[in-house]
Amino acid sequence: MSTTATYDVAGMTCGHCVTAVTQELSALPGVSSVVVDLKTGDTSPVRVTSDAPLDAEQVRAAVDEAGYEVVGSRS
Amino acid sequence: MSTTATYDVAGMTCGHCVTAVTQELSALPGVSSVVVDLKTGDTSPVRVTSDAPLDAEQVRAAVDEAGYEVVGSRS
Repeated sequence: MSTTATYDVAGMTCGHCVTAVTQELSALPGVSSVVVDLKTGDTSPVRVTSDAPLDAEQVRAAVDEAGYEVVGSRS
Repeated sequence: MSTTATYDVAGMTCGHCVTAVTQELSALPGVSSVVVDLKTGDTSPVRVTSDAPLDAEQVRAAVDEAGYEVVGSRS
């Protein structure tokens, strides 16, 4: 079983940003997949699949660590 | 003695891009300083200081290696 949630991340502009966010989120326990749909000049949806639902605060902290901001989320 | 030239580089959008271009250009023989003035959505002037004038083709190749394009230059 796995669960997927989508986070809207602001401030991502290029492939390097995608790499940074993907690396931080992939490092969270239980995460099996991170897919970023880069939208320059807008928020980018980031789909995260994990064994169990993730703690929102942990996701927010990981994205912040990469240098970006979660501005919304949905399951 | 040192010489400085400015290259206009297209496609740079964020601090990661600045890092990538700076690393590639700093690795060229004789380069002592690389200063990028990031201009998102426009070409970014990159000022390169070196012991002797650089070969334009070498600079172009280094920027290309980082994933960007030199679209102009001036001394």
